[in-house]
Amino acid sequence: MSIAAQLSPQLLAQLTEIVGESRVKTDASSLENWGKDYTKHFEPNPSVIVFPSSTEQVQQIVQFANANQIAITPSGGRTGLSAGAVASNGEIVVSLDKMSQILDFFPADRMVRIQAGVVTEQLQEYAESKDMYYPVDFASAGSSQMGGNIATNAGGIKVIKYGMTRNWVLGLTVVTGKGDVLRLNKGMIKNATGYALQHLFIGSEGTLGIVTEAEIKLERKPHDLQVMVLGVPDFDAVMPILHAFQSKIDLTAFEFFGEVAMQKVLDHGHVQRPFDTECPYYVLLEFEAPYEPIMDAAMEIFEHCMEEGWVLDGVLSQSLDQVESLWRLREDISESIAPFTPYKNDISVLITHVPAFIKEIEEIVEQNYPDFEICWFGHIGDGNLHLNILKPENLDKDDFFAKCKVVNEHVFNTVQKYDGSISAEHGVGMTKKPYLAMTRSAEEIEYMKVLKKVFDPNSIMNPGKLFD
Amino acid sequence: MSIAAQLSPQLLAQLTEIVGESRVKTDASSLENWGKDYTKHFEPNPSVIVFPSSTEQVQQIVQFANANQIAITPSGGRTGLSAGAVASNGEIVVSLDKMSQILDFFPADRMVRIQAGVVTEQLQEYAESKDMYYPVDFASAGSSQMGGNIATNAGGIKVIKYGMTRNWVLGLTVVTGKGDVLRLNKGMIKNATGYALQHLFIGSEGTLGIVTEAEIKLERKPHDLQVMVLGVPDFDAVMPILHAFQSKIDLTAFEFFGEVAMQKVLDHGHVQRPFDTECPYYVLLEFEAPYEPIMDAAMEIFEHCMEEGWVLDGVLSQSLDQVESLWRLREDISESIAPFTPYKNDISVLITHVPAFIKEIEEIVEQNYPDFEICWFGHIGDGNLHLNILKPENLDKDDFFAKCKVVNEHVFNTVQKYDGSISAEHGVGMTKKPYLAMTRSAEEIEYMKVLKKVFDPNSIMNPGKLFD
Repeated sequence: MSIAAQLSPQLLAQLTEIVGESRVKTDASSLENWGKDYTKHFEPNPSVIVFPSSTEQVQQIVQFANANQIAITPSGGRTGLSAGAVASNGEIVVSLDKMSQILDFFPADRMVRIQAGVVTEQLQEYAESKDMYYPVDFASAGSSQMGGNIATNAGGIKVIKYGMTRNWVLGLTVVTGKGDVLRLNKGMIKNATGYALQHLFIGSEGTLGIVTEAEIKLERKPHDLQVMVLGVPDFDAVMPILHAFQSKIDLTAFEFFGEVAMQKVLDHGHVQRPFDTECPYYVLLEFEAPYEPIMDAAMEIFEHCMEEGWVLDGVLSQSLDQVESLWRLREDISESIAPFTPYKNDISVLITHVPAFIKEIEEIVEQNYPDFEICWFGHIGDGNLHLNILKPENLDKDDFFAKCKVVNEHVFNTVQKYDGSISAEHGVGMTKKPYLAMTRSAEEIEYMKVLKKVFDPNSIMNPGKLFD
Repeated sequence: MSIAAQLSPQLLAQLTEIVGESRVKTDASSLENWGKDYTKHFEPNPSVIVFPSSTEQVQQIVQFANANQIAITPSGGRTGLSAGAVASNGEIVVSLDKMSQILDFFPADRMVRIQAGVVTEQLQEYAESKDMYYPVDFASAGSSQMGGNIATNAGGIKVIKYGMTRNWVLGLTVVTGKGDVLRLNKGMIKNATGYALQHLFIGSEGTLGIVTEAEIKLERKPHDLQVMVLGVPDFDAVMPILHAFQSKIDLTAFEFFGEVAMQKVLDHGHVQRPFDTECPYYVLLEFEAPYEPIMDAAMEIFEHCMEEGWVLDGVLSQSLDQVESLWRLREDISESIAPFTPYKNDISVLITHVPAFIKEIEEIVEQNYPDFEICWFGHIGDGNLHLNILKPENLDKDDFFAKCKVVNEHVFNTVQKYDGSISAEHGVGMTKKPYLAMTRSAEEIEYMKVLKKVFDPNSIMNPGKLFD
């Protein structure tokens, strides 16, 4: 960590006045801890961490920041993967940690009103306690906060049925960069009264303002979830399998991963190969089967896929335990490949283009870096691929990353060629900023910059993120 | 109609150059026809109607309009109910009638790319031909265009399961008021690369630009739809019924209407009372029942509702014919009350607040206008109520509307008190413009005005709609 940025004692006193003595931290370890997210490419260097407890306090902090021309970095669970919540230039980090209350529950509306610091898992458990369900789920649900999920429009493993975070936001309270408090959409399903400003804040990565509260829709609990893992001979078979199942059964997940990923998860040691046949690719699909005929239909489709040669082998969960252990084949991938210093990419293209896209990327890597191992996995039912390049053991880390940067250019060129996205669900932050123009046109970026000025005229909100 | 606004022969020649001779109309009957929508409060008075055939032509028209400071009113199927597509000040009406092609189908993505002039029913039938389903449906589906649906974020009768038009838009091509062509989101499900500009255009009522093309998601067809109509003793029973069914069964519709509406539909003559018991209120619910146990569950819930006294009588569809005739009880309401010169309101509040809201409105009308008949119906599963006041036979039309305007103030005050929306799904246009501040705060409206300036600096896009 570099030498800490500092606020003058006077300014610090003013901030302390707003949030109270116990809600201000300037010690080195706190600055380090709250100054960064899951990424490691940028040094944290905030000047102070504050922990407001109300929308009003957040508003006062924003007014203070405007008056003194100090930048703010909003901070949630700090699980981001694009350095959207890294404060490396003396920012005031506004942590929502102390705004973690579930404020109200509306059973008839199947809705909760929450503060932005509510942790994803906390909301999931609360919903469960009301015999309801919050369906946006992903690996970091245990620490990610709802405000951060909203600011990045978080996705995850159930998007194919339930959609992104955006789908579950019925209302938002935000403090704009200008310091206005807006209460947007107030929980309504139907409200046709002008521009849907809430949707501008969803996915804006803290560059327009700070989300302080939200109305979130809940769903009924899924019944009798079943999981199938299927071994697939080549990638071209994946889409027909998806189509065959989807035309009869509502899938709650359709994930895929390659044998490289499977191997790493097995080596990691917590689960076993689901069947003997080693296959180039695997798909994991999940669906609700509260009625016997759904299981019959699933088995019929499975057999049809076998006959067509799209599936080489497969397994169906026989118990709740097995549902969990089959899911681990997919969910343990990130942890299992971590020791191989993976170079991560989170991209998306139309599902239609996925097979051609994967082939092109594999050819590029094979030609240029035959010793690189590619570990594919992803939410293939949404066209979302996580491309991970693993570091060969004998290669130096810096050399590896330098080479990966070159591969990256190829990958992003291919994404652009297929009209895809350079960041499907991880946001742009600082790490994807140089590549934004490969997904958004020059005109779009220009409009985005002007929109930022509308809500944040003094550029105090998370500067350096998304674009410069 | 007032004396037609006119373009100079020179300007008319320039416009004709862009779209071609056969695509320009200035005769009185065309000006009258394309200059208005379903509303009748404002006189149409456009200067010319043009029918572009491509995004490029739309762009040229917008550039022409900017250069010559002439306003544009975008025009779709003209089925709007808030005068959002009425051209009453010499505007160029840009009709999307000739951009009605379905451009592409992506089966793996379950998506179509269409031009904005595609009629809702045309898309529904196209989806059907691909064994798919476009679920946003409402009375004017036979003439409303997708561009207009997007510009107003149209809702309708299946929102409880499928959501609003917004949920089905995966991409938009728009020409902004400034004349830029933006291709937004390009059909992706996951794309976390900055502000979701498409969501700003959805529901913007043509005030920011013109939607010319869209990527629209499709869904699998519903299987074995069943309809129940239930008679309810008082409004307080409606919410427990919704809750009882929703906790076990995924509803595709949950509509409600009062005995007044039922009576008018019966008098209209095409359908019969579904059961003998006359009840103050009725709910119509629909669900998929491809498996026997779902029917059993539905019957069990029905019996439970009877035992609890929430339901007085009920009927379940026994055939596809009966599904249709039961739906007509709800769908024929608008047509059946048309002869009574209804004063319409389309409002929404949280479902939680609906019972109290309805009671307050009924008391207000009863106290002040005991001779007014209120006809309630609506998409109660979304908190969306259509409040229709029927004109007493002996009352003069102008007197009636004058009195309704006073009632209106009470209604909107009550909407505001419950944090609801003065326009749930009909948009603001010109008719709801005076009341916008009862749903959106002064700060929100100020931001909306500034956003309009960003995309439409010369205020040529549908001026006078939404706000001044």
